[in-house]
Amino acid sequence: MVRRNVNFTRLHPVYLFADIAKQKAAFLLKNPHAQLISLGIGDTTEPIVQTVDQKLVEKAQALGTMRGYSGYGPEQGDPLLREKIALAAGVKPEEVFVSDGSKCDIGRLQHLFGTGLKVAVQDPTYPAYVDNSIIGGSSEIIYLACQPENGFFPEIEKAPPFDLLYFCSPNNPTGAVATHAQLERLVKEVKCRGAILLFDAAYSRYIQDPTLPRSIFEIAGAREVAIELGSFSKIAGFTGVRLGWTIVPEELHYEEGGSVRADWQRIATTCFNGASNIAQAGGVAVLEPQGLQEVELQIAFYLENASLLKDAFEKSGFTVYGGGNAPYLWIHFPGRSSWEVFEELLEKAHIVTTPGVGFGPAGEGFVRVSPYGHRSHILEAIQRIGRFVNKSASMKN
Amino acid sequence: MVRRNVNFTRLHPVYLFADIAKQKAAFLLKNPHAQLISLGIGDTTEPIVQTVDQKLVEKAQALGTMRGYSGYGPEQGDPLLREKIALAAGVKPEEVFVSDGSKCDIGRLQHLFGTGLKVAVQDPTYPAYVDNSIIGGSSEIIYLACQPENGFFPEIEKAPPFDLLYFCSPNNPTGAVATHAQLERLVKEVKCRGAILLFDAAYSRYIQDPTLPRSIFEIAGAREVAIELGSFSKIAGFTGVRLGWTIVPEELHYEEGGSVRADWQRIATTCFNGASNIAQAGGVAVLEPQGLQEVELQIAFYLENASLLKDAFEKSGFTVYGGGNAPYLWIHFPGRSSWEVFEELLEKAHIVTTPGVGFGPAGEGFVRVSPYGHRSHILEAIQRIGRFVNKSASMKN
Repeated sequence: MVRRNVNFTRLHPVYLFADIAKQKAAFLLKNPHAQLISLGIGDTTEPIVQTVDQKLVEKAQALGTMRGYSGYGPEQGDPLLREKIALAAGVKPEEVFVSDGSKCDIGRLQHLFGTGLKVAVQDPTYPAYVDNSIIGGSSEIIYLACQPENGFFPEIEKAPPFDLLYFCSPNNPTGAVATHAQLERLVKEVKCRGAILLFDAAYSRYIQDPTLPRSIFEIAGAREVAIELGSFSKIAGFTGVRLGWTIVPEELHYEEGGSVRADWQRIATTCFNGASNIAQAGGVAVLEPQGLQEVELQIAFYLENASLLKDAFEKSGFTVYGGGNAPYLWIHFPGRSSWEVFEELLEKAHIVTTPGVGFGPAGEGFVRVSPYGHRSHILEAIQRIGRFVNKSASMKN
Repeated sequence: MVRRNVNFTRLHPVYLFADIAKQKAAFLLKNPHAQLISLGIGDTTEPIVQTVDQKLVEKAQALGTMRGYSGYGPEQGDPLLREKIALAAGVKPEEVFVSDGSKCDIGRLQHLFGTGLKVAVQDPTYPAYVDNSIIGGSSEIIYLACQPENGFFPEIEKAPPFDLLYFCSPNNPTGAVATHAQLERLVKEVKCRGAILLFDAAYSRYIQDPTLPRSIFEIAGAREVAIELGSFSKIAGFTGVRLGWTIVPEELHYEEGGSVRADWQRIATTCFNGASNIAQAGGVAVLEPQGLQEVELQIAFYLENASLLKDAFEKSGFTVYGGGNAPYLWIHFPGRSSWEVFEELLEKAHIVTTPGVGFGPAGEGFVRVSPYGHRSHILEAIQRIGRFVNKSASMKN
């Protein structure tokens, strides 16, 4: 009989967000009239901006006409979209591979390197890096603590041996943004170890400070060691529309000397069949001047949500990291358990957050707060945070 | 340094359709004014039917409004779409997993069973089964010859040991459709060996004969041994829109007793993030009465293309298999090489086909002809086939 992929037994039984959804559902069963506000999962809530939405509509309309219909596109993506992404990233179009999203690309990335790899991640980290690595047969996950004490940047030179390093900046969940100097250290160390850096830039357009790098390829030498993941999800509200990309530079090679880009092309054509043509038409519009202007306003809106929430938590006496050049807030509850704080916020303030420990052991004592809500909900959440603190304080007395 | 996934070295260096595209491009470079007609890749060309396209447009419009916007959906798919697929297939909604297409699901299926498996395929076969199995670490590919001599159905009882069996009916590329009795043999044999059957039903809606099974789950006992792949690509012209599904029955278990469905759910939530919400809205419309009526007319149109082409090749003296209850024609050129026939059809008739041997060794001597063209092109192709035969005949004299 057919046996199970043995790697499944090494996974934590339930995926973090599914776990939270379950707790939320259980709470609502007991409190059917509670008006929950979700500051949990990083899911966009604002409508798609007008210029971009218009292109989605036009492409959908065109597919119903003899003249505008098209079937399979190139698996690597529409050439115009690849060109626009390449231009924005300062790479060559043939190094850009359009996909249905970064999470899906992380799944497919496992095929490139085979099994038995040591994979380093920031701790806390986006769980999909860890779970996909485990399913793909990595032999070890190395957690590099990113905490207030080290400015949320690991002592990379002292890290145990690793083959792959996932690094996300602006970071999910901590909201930390690596500086130019920090990324130089990272590239240098990865190169010196002969490892490969998988750089997740899904939130790069949230960077407002022009001195902070938006792409790993702004760092000298990165083209020989790094793959970069990009996404339209948090740029343009495409979380449900599904569109992302991966950049694999020509200079990236295996130990044996072969081109990683060539194998990624093979994976794109063999394990994938192109992103939805409607989504891709929208992606092109995002990267045209008018679309870009509109999505940048939307990003600024979410950053303002983050700023309002940050103020509220700070006024209530909490230490808050993130925001500013990143969407997420990372709120410290020293000495407490993340799940305990999560439950207290759910039960007393009817606010859903994400327990920091769900992102890795160094997330214990934190919760992640997401700014992806309607403004009215954010303002209501701020009221509740004030009341929650007073309630907690009076309970302690 | 990081080594390449060793399985890549076991792949044929170029994917079949990329290979054909290259030959086509080379021909057009030499013959820039040639008006090629593609009967090659199975890519839909008719516009999306009105009712379905309207839903794509409406969903795209809704995403631009506060009321109609939605972000991440359930990774397993919109509950309404799962319900409609389940109803049509006679399974439970929770056994249906919506995806961005079967090829992508075939890639993800490799995660379920780990490495070292013996994988049996029909020969000729859709290349994605083989390539994904190899990348995923299968130890052996077993080709089960499907030829005129065995009615395109393998002597499954005499097959060497295998763990997984891919089976496609209506078949790509031969156009053969398995009977109820044949599928009973298949399920019985797979069960008796403790193997798992991956049944590709992408073309099931092309079956017009009500006595032929459209789903493996019409066969008693199949729920304990089979996974079924479905697709909107060839039903509704969604090759570029991207939408498919996979059915994993609750009764399917590993040797150790665990549920395959539970792991597939984990894969859906970890390595995937849901199909495009616009595509899913279209999928719902396909399965509603008006949409279904319209897509069935379109399927009938493609089947008529197949029938016209079949007549033309038969009148020219060739033996033609397929068509009728399947889109593809499988044309026999006994004693000749597939690539030679492909090149001759390209150079003398300016018609692009697919060389049968590209689908496996038993495809040698055949070419696959696809009916997915505009009617005017099909009629022009028929004229050229007549002239081609006369030309070839006069050259022989």
